[in-house]
Amino acid sequence: MKTTEINVLEEVNLDNPIFIEALPGMGHVGKLAADHIIDEFDATKFAEIHSPTFPPQVIVKEEGIIENMFNELYYLKDVGEDNLDLIILVGNTQSLSPEGQYFVCQEILDFVSEYDISRIFTLGGMATSPQPVENPTVFGAATNEANAELLKEAGVELRSNDGGIVGASGLFLGLGLRRGIHGSCLMGETPGYFIDAESAEALLIKLSQLLNFEINTEKLDERAEETRQMIAKAQQMEQDLINKSNAGNADDLRYIG
Amino acid sequence: MKTTEINVLEEVNLDNPIFIEALPGMGHVGKLAADHIIDEFDATKFAEIHSPTFPPQVIVKEEGIIENMFNELYYLKDVGEDNLDLIILVGNTQSLSPEGQYFVCQEILDFVSEYDISRIFTLGGMATSPQPVENPTVFGAATNEANAELLKEAGVELRSNDGGIVGASGLFLGLGLRRGIHGSCLMGETPGYFIDAESAEALLIKLSQLLNFEINTEKLDERAEETRQMIAKAQQMEQDLINKSNAGNADDLRYIG
Amino acid sequence: MKTTEINVLEEVNLDNPIFIEALPGMGHVGKLAADHIIDEFDATKFAEIHSPTFPPQVIVKEEGIIENMFNELYYLKDVGEDNLDLIILVGNTQSLSPEGQYFVCQEILDFVSEYDISRIFTLGGMATSPQPVENPTVFGAATNEANAELLKEAGVELRSNDGGIVGASGLFLGLGLRRGIHGSCLMGETPGYFIDAESAEALLIKLSQLLNFEINTEKLDERAEETRQMIAKAQQMEQDLINKSNAGNADDLRYIG
Amino acid sequence: MKTTEINVLEEVNLDNPIFIEALPGMGHVGKLAADHIIDEFDATKFAEIHSPTFPPQVIVKEEGIIENMFNELYYLKDVGEDNLDLIILVGNTQSLSPEGQYFVCQEILDFVSEYDISRIFTLGGMATSPQPVENPTVFGAATNEANAELLKEAGVELRSNDGGIVGASGLFLGLGLRRGIHGSCLMGETPGYFIDAESAEALLIKLSQLLNFEINTEKLDERAEETRQMIAKAQQMEQDLINKSNAGNADDLRYIG
Repeated sequence: MKTTEINVLEEVNLDNPIFIEALPGMGHVGKLAADHIIDEFDATKFAEIHSPTFPPQVIVKEEGIIENMFNELYYLKDVGEDNLDLIILVGNTQSLSPEGQYFVCQEILDFVSEYDISRIFTLGGMATSPQPVENPTVFGAATNEANAELLKEAGVELRSNDGGIVGASGLFLGLGLRRGIHGSCLMGETPGYFIDAESAEALLIKLSQLLNFEINTEKLDERAEETRQMIAKAQQMEQDLINKSNAGNADDLRYIG
Repeated sequence: MKTTEINVLEEVNLDNPIFIEALPGMGHVGKLAADHIIDEFDATKFAEIHSPTFPPQVIVKEEGIIENMFNELYYLKDVGEDNLDLIILVGNTQSLSPEGQYFVCQEILDFVSEYDISRIFTLGGMATSPQPVENPTVFGAATNEANAELLKEAGVELRSNDGGIVGASGLFLGLGLRRGIHGSCLMGETPGYFIDAESAEALLIKLSQLLNFEINTEKLDERAEETRQMIAKAQQMEQDLINKSNAGNADDLRYIG
Repeated sequence: MKTTEINVLEEVNLDNPIFIEALPGMGHVGKLAADHIIDEFDATKFAEIHSPTFPPQVIVKEEGIIENMFNELYYLKDVGEDNLDLIILVGNTQSLSPEGQYFVCQEILDFVSEYDISRIFTLGGMATSPQPVENPTVFGAATNEANAELLKEAGVELRSNDGGIVGASGLFLGLGLRRGIHGSCLMGETPGYFIDAESAEALLIKLSQLLNFEINTEKLDERAEETRQMIAKAQQMEQDLINKSNAGNADDLRYIG
Repeated sequence: MKTTEINVLEEVNLDNPIFIEALPGMGHVGKLAADHIIDEFDATKFAEIHSPTFPPQVIVKEEGIIENMFNELYYLKDVGEDNLDLIILVGNTQSLSPEGQYFVCQEILDFVSEYDISRIFTLGGMATSPQPVENPTVFGAATNEANAELLKEAGVELRSNDGGIVGASGLFLGLGLRRGIHGSCLMGETPGYFIDAESAEALLIKLSQLLNFEINTEKLDERAEETRQMIAKAQQMEQDLINKSNAGNADDLRYIG
C-alpha cells in the first residue's frame, strides 16, 4: 500500500469546479455542513481514498457493521445562480502523522487539480470558549486579498495574526497557494467537544452566500435541536468517563487487540 | 530489513481456509483462545514474521533465555464437523506505529490471501468495566449483514455505533473488506489488565459454535483458576509499582540500554 | 513531494560566502537578529524551501491572509570591512520530526555547499532563567579551537560540558563538521517565552564584531521597547490560557479541522 | 543521508571476534565498562557510524567544542588467556525512534558480521531500586541455554520471565539470534539516574571472567569514588531543576533553535 490510494469510481467532466474540503475536525462543523450539501443536492461520489497514515482502526456502525477509515470525493454540477461545479472532500478521518497530512493532502490536490479547480474552500470549526455560544460567528482566512475581501463582504469575520490553521483545512490552502490556486477557510465558532449543528448551519449560510446558492437548512435545524439535547447527555457521559478513569485506565477502555 | 519479513517454514495446501487473527491485546483474550486452539489441535507453524515496526526489544523468558518479538502463522486441516482448514495468526506483539500496523497487516493479508482464504475472524478483548465480571459477554462486529447475522445466531452481542476497533483486529477486517473478503470480530469482555482466561473461554465457546467444532476447554479452566489466584497477586504488584514510582520513575525501572 | 523542495529564485555568484542559520527557536533570538540584517542590508531572497516535515498547518497573518510554513535563503554581497558574502537561512519553522531535522538540514547544506561556503554561523537563544535579564550574555560553541578562540576574543562566553544544541543550530554545525566546514553557534541569553529583541541585539553586536561589519540596531532597540511592553501582556495571556485550560482542553483550543 | 552511514577508517583482519555492544543506557553502566576496556587495552577505532535516527542535536564538550552524535567501532586483538579478538561498539547515543533502532542495529550487525563474529555480548544497566546499592548484582540473559549456563557459572544472576530488554542491548541479541549468532546480555544493577562506575566495575569483573582476561579496574575505582561524590551534587541539581520547572518550563530550558 502506497501513502495514498485513490480509487476512481466514475470518470466525470467538470467545468472549473470549486474544491471544498470538509474533513472531520473541531466540532465536526465543516463535515456536518458538507454532508448536508451532499444530502440536499444529492451529490455523486466519484472517488474513494484510503491511506496507511489514517488511524489504524475500523469504526463500528449500526447493527455491528464495521466501516473503514476513508476520505471520499463527491461532485455536483450547476449549483446555484452561477451554475457552479463543486468537488467536495469528506470522510471519517484525517491523517494521524504530520508528514501523512502533507502527503495525503498533496496527493488529493494533485488528483483534483486534473479537473482544473478554480478555487478552494476549506471548512472547519474554531474553538473560542468552552461554553456553547448563542449565535456562532463564522471566522475566515484567505490566500490573498481578493478572497479575503469576498469573505468580508459576506460578513465573515477575518482572523488576523492569529495562530495557525492546523490539518487539512490549512494545508489545502497552503499547498494550493504554492501552485497558484487561491481560496479561503471558513471556520464556525464552536466549543468543539460535541458535534455542533448550529455552528455548521452558520457556516453553511455564509458558504451559500459566497457561492450564490440556496440551501434548505431545515434538517440541520433538526439536528441542531438534537444536538442541544445531546449536550446534556454528552456532559453526563464525560463525567462518567472521568469517574471510570479514576477506577481504571480510561485510555484503554475501548482498545481492542 | 524491509517493513515485514515473512519466513515460510513449510509449503502447504489448504482448502479455502478461514483466517483467524489473535495477536496480543486487551486482556490477551484473543491470544489465549488462539493459543489454546493451537495446543489442543496440535496446529503446525508454517511461517514466522518479523518487522522493524515491532517494539525494539527482546523478551526474557524462563531461565534467562531471550525471545524476539514475532508474529507467526499456524495451520490446521479438517477441523470440526465442516472439515474446515484454518490459518491462525498469533505472536507476542503488534506493530508499535500506526503506519506499521497498516503495512504489516497488509503484507500478512497479502500472504494469506494466496491460500484463498474464505473468511476472517479476529479475536480480541473488550473492556467494559475495571472489575472482573462473572460471566463475560462476547461482543461482535462484522463486515456485512450476513456475518453479523451469524454472530447474532451464536448469541454474540453485536456492538452498535460504538467507537472503533483499534489495531490488528480492526485492520484485518477493514483491509479484507476492501478486497471483498468478509469476516467478523469476536471480543471477550474483560477488565483488560490481567491475562483473562475466563473471557478467553467464553470467546472460544462462541468461536467453536460459529465454526462448528468441539474443543476441550478444561485446560483453559485450569488457567482460569490460576488467573483468579493471579489477580490478587497482580493487584499487589501494581500497588508495589505505584509505591516504587513515587520513590523514583517507574517508567524507566526496566529500561536497559 | 520529496522530503525537501528547494525552489531557486535567482542564480547568483557568491565569493566563498559565510552561511548563517537563524531559524525560529528559543525566544526567536536568532531569527530576530537575522531578520534585522536582512532588512538593514536589504538582502535578496534567492531560494524558498518547503518540506512535509514542517508542521502540517498554515499561519494566519494580518488581515486574514494565510502563509505557508517555509524556510528561505537570502544573500548579501560585500558586507563590512572584509567584503564578506553571506547566505542567510531564515523562516517561520523548523522540521517537526527528529529525522526530518536531519534530512532538511542535510539537503539545505548540500545546496549551500555548492556556493563554496567558507564558514557556518548558527544563531539561537539560550534559556538560563525564567526571568528576563538586564544585559543578556551571548554564549557560544564552535566546531574547532580556532573558531572557539575567535568567539572568546569577541567576548562570547564559551559553554563547556553543557548539554546539547538541539535542532538546526546544532545540526548545521555537526553536519558541516563532518564535511570539513567549520563554524560557531551564537546563543543570546533569553527567558525564551517571548520574542526577545534585547537578546537579539546582544547577539547581533557579537556577530557584527566577528564578521567585522557595522549595523544600525536602532530599530531593534525600538522592537526591544515594544517587547518590554509585550511581556506584561504575554504574561497576562498565558494566565488566561491556563484559566481556559482548566475549563476545557487548552491543547485543542486552536485546532481547526 | 541514508538510514545509517558507516565510515570505515581502517581495513582490519580479525579472527572470529566477539562483538560487544555498550551504547549509552541506564546508568551508562555498559558504556563505562566498555570505555574502560578501550582505554586500558588501547583499542583502535576502525569505523564511525552516523544516522538521521540519532537525536537531532550536537553536544557541547570541553571549552565549547561541539561533538556530533555518533556510534563507533573499536577492535582489539589477542585479548586475555584465550587470545580473543574483540569488536566493541560504543558511542554517545542510540536511535531515537523504534524503527531507527531496528534499522541501525541491523546495519551495524550486517557490517560486523563480515568479520565472522563468533558471539555477542551486550552490556547495560538494570534499575532495581532508586537507592544506590552496596554491592551491585550483575544480571544476565542469553540467546540459548549454553550461553545462559556460562553466565550462571560466572555468578551472573539470570533473569527469568522478567520483562523486556529494550534498545540496542536487546536488539543485537535478537537480531543475532535470527541469523544464528548467539550471545548474552550483562546488566549491572544501578539506580540509573547517575553515571554508575561501581555497577560498571561489577559488570566488568563478570565480563573479564567470561572472556578470561585480566583488567586493572583501579581507574574505575577512582571514577567510582568521584561518582559517589557526584551523587550528592546530582541530587542537589535535580532539586534545582524541579524548582526551576515550577517557575518556568524545564523541558525547554536547554532547547536552542
